[in-house]
Amino acid sequence: MANKSITSRNIDFAKWYTDVVKAAHLCEYSSVKGCMIIEPNGYAIWEEMQKNLDNMFKESGHKNIYMPLLIPENLMQKEGELINGFAPEVAWVTIGGNKELDEKMCIRPTSETLFSDYYALKVKSYKDLPLKYNQWCNVMRWEKETRPFLRSREFLWQEGHTVHSTSTEAEKETNDMLLTYKRFFEEYLAIPVVTGRKTEKEKFAGAEYTLTVEALMYNGVALQSATSHYFGQKFSKAYNIKFLNKDNKEEYAYQTSWGTTTRMIGALIMVHSDDDGLVLPPKIAPLKVAIIPIGTDDKVKEKTKQIKEELIKNNISCYIDDTERTPGFKFAEAEVQGIPVRIEIGARDLENGCLTIARRDTKERITVSLDENIVEYTKNLLDNIQDNLYKKALENQKSKTYEAHTLDEVKEIMDKHPGFVKASWCGSEECELKMKEIKGTKSRCILDEELIDDKCIVCGKKANHLVLWGIQY
Amino acid sequence: MANKSITSRNIDFAKWYTDVVKAAHLCEYSSVKGCMIIEPNGYAIWEEMQKNLDNMFKESGHKNIYMPLLIPENLMQKEGELINGFAPEVAWVTIGGNKELDEKMCIRPTSETLFSDYYALKVKSYKDLPLKYNQWCNVMRWEKETRPFLRSREFLWQEGHTVHSTSTEAEKETNDMLLTYKRFFEEYLAIPVVTGRKTEKEKFAGAEYTLTVEALMYNGVALQSATSHYFGQKFSKAYNIKFLNKDNKEEYAYQTSWGTTTRMIGALIMVHSDDDGLVLPPKIAPLKVAIIPIGTDDKVKEKTKQIKEELIKNNISCYIDDTERTPGFKFAEAEVQGIPVRIEIGARDLENGCLTIARRDTKERITVSLDENIVEYTKNLLDNIQDNLYKKALENQKSKTYEAHTLDEVKEIMDKHPGFVKASWCGSEECELKMKEIKGTKSRCILDEELIDDKCIVCGKKANHLVLWGIQY
Repeated sequence: MANKSITSRNIDFAKWYTDVVKAAHLCEYSSVKGCMIIEPNGYAIWEEMQKNLDNMFKESGHKNIYMPLLIPENLMQKEGELINGFAPEVAWVTIGGNKELDEKMCIRPTSETLFSDYYALKVKSYKDLPLKYNQWCNVMRWEKETRPFLRSREFLWQEGHTVHSTSTEAEKETNDMLLTYKRFFEEYLAIPVVTGRKTEKEKFAGAEYTLTVEALMYNGVALQSATSHYFGQKFSKAYNIKFLNKDNKEEYAYQTSWGTTTRMIGALIMVHSDDDGLVLPPKIAPLKVAIIPIGTDDKVKEKTKQIKEELIKNNISCYIDDTERTPGFKFAEAEVQGIPVRIEIGARDLENGCLTIARRDTKERITVSLDENIVEYTKNLLDNIQDNLYKKALENQKSKTYEAHTLDEVKEIMDKHPGFVKASWCGSEECELKMKEIKGTKSRCILDEELIDDKCIVCGKKANHLVLWGIQY
Repeated sequence: MANKSITSRNIDFAKWYTDVVKAAHLCEYSSVKGCMIIEPNGYAIWEEMQKNLDNMFKESGHKNIYMPLLIPENLMQKEGELINGFAPEVAWVTIGGNKELDEKMCIRPTSETLFSDYYALKVKSYKDLPLKYNQWCNVMRWEKETRPFLRSREFLWQEGHTVHSTSTEAEKETNDMLLTYKRFFEEYLAIPVVTGRKTEKEKFAGAEYTLTVEALMYNGVALQSATSHYFGQKFSKAYNIKFLNKDNKEEYAYQTSWGTTTRMIGALIMVHSDDDGLVLPPKIAPLKVAIIPIGTDDKVKEKTKQIKEELIKNNISCYIDDTERTPGFKFAEAEVQGIPVRIEIGARDLENGCLTIARRDTKERITVSLDENIVEYTKNLLDNIQDNLYKKALENQKSKTYEAHTLDEVKEIMDKHPGFVKASWCGSEECELKMKEIKGTKSRCILDEELIDDKCIVCGKKANHLVLWGIQY
């Protein structure tokens, strides 16, 4: 029986999405247009994401730093492509301390400018390099249309910025961080992804090239989930980041940047969740187990406490729902919030020497003997759920990945059952724009795979790349 | 031998402070006036502070949340005292996405308005209460004079905001959080503090009353280090936060807020550090041990690795400095960065079956036999350093806490050897302003202690409170 406050996913996916966000108390609209309040249930997921990603960054030698929120106009303008890319969507501070400012400042939409300004000050010699810094912060982009977690004027993210003495090292970093994201998506979020290079049209403003992590949602719509940019010397020339190389000659440094955002929470919803609400992969779930007493029997109370203590001792986060509501209400509440495992304990169960364990992903309920080691059982079940969610997501992605040889085929796919479409492409922006006319189909990335046709699917001229296409959020 | 890049603390305290900030690479000035870059060494300290405080907040049932960065003018204006207090020092966004905004929005100087607006939406019944939320974020106040970590236009902080169904419960929360801060300062930062209530003049705009944690720096200057505010129903009336109480009657809710900031890093410097640079209490030091090989002998290398592994296995963070610089340089570098313990290992030491352990606080160097359990030795030493730093800070605070009975005495104290001054006060703002004429001496807090005089130290009329006074940062 599906949650009544949630529209069915197969009836109206967009409505289903916002219903789940609301029912699971992940975020709330605020009085500030286009900005969201990330509620405790949503923020706790973000904290899990931060913790795990941050560990991965630190293990690979990155350090955290904090740059200013505001960027003076003249600093922003030094790198032309960047300001052209972001100018239409920044917020400007023009008054501070009751006075009109001499120079307006924008709220950071991203911080390449500030990092480059800082690196110009810090980098003198190849011995200072590499510098591999990351920042967790809020950024602002004045979007017109917004959608919880997926697109909002303010969002939370991390932005890594590194500077190197050789292009080889910087390019390796760009690729390493792409693989770090890929690993995080697949191992923690249980979301299979496709990686590749963005086209010139779709790359980050100011980058030599952009690598991207693309995920496919349950409904076949693509989500750009993380990006890693190679800047070469573009920013170092604009911001004067020079160092003495091993030959004692001055050289401009090589840079990268890479980031991912709270939109990952949106991806979790759209990949795994269902008509009963949120479904969370155990590795990223803030609370892994809900323990629900049936009735008020003292023995039941005691047993729930005992199980809670054992789970916590084994680092399995959990809670007992001992409020006065009905068991059915509590079950639904744990389900809608995506708690991966639910343990139900009643007096009759105890008499029979068992309890019931329910898994959120399949909704299967299993009677487990009290002779079993409940902690081990739960651990295995959590692993099993994690694997199962990945497998289901991979099946969905595979079943919705197509090859197309004509624009008519693309049209039919996007009309009837959208997904990732592989097709050959000549490399021209004109052909990309033509493709976009089909329900907004855009290039997701250039694949490192063999062409499936010699000719561009759009213009019929010589094809140079196999491209993954999709409709996007 | 003191670090050459650092002015002596006793010669010029202000210069010493900025020298330590610079030499320990804690923060750097940016191209954004009044905003600082928190460098990796500084940010790592902030992460330790966050981690430990966050645990304390969560243990007492608080959850994290994220509110928007911007506050629309009309929302900000609902509570009159708050806007009057903050209006002169906020930054206003007037342009977004290339368009003049219909309504300007300020960058949050604090978020009472946003939390209240949210609570008005969420709170319906006493069953929904209490809501105890906290937010880690950046805020902005357009300060004219700035100083690294102590006063800057943008800073990082946490702000707790809670809403309760009774004044008793809200007042208890206000006091509990004060005590949480006190515990954090004393147990983690090794900084003894005085707590009390702010005078009407010094309380937070919009609060019924403000409780404060006051610390004394090495030079006798006071630092307001954390505050906890009781709002009563002031904000709930302005923002319409009503609930049905147990008698099924509508009632305005009771609120609190409490916060502390990156200025705690400034306190760490000004309480513990010396002419060789930063001194960090072990419990808050991101890296607790520096392992420094003397020479390049293979056995030395092996031993440093082995010790590193053992320390890390025991959760003692450490690093090996195996760069090509001289041991002397490495010692100074570990010292200036405040690493609490340094382990020096040379070939001759190993032949003699020992190594050298140096503690940063006293600079004592101890020869330790390899037969000792180095992990246990280090653990004990770290505890010992933590205790010693607290004792030293407490001695300094005690030796610089005075009682005064006349304004001349206050003058003499503040001229010759500033510190905390206890003096009786009638309660009038006029007398506070008179006191301020003495080198800016302000009331730090009203103490819960017996009067030392029946008469106000300023006007001679009946005294009502014993007040702690001090010059402040």
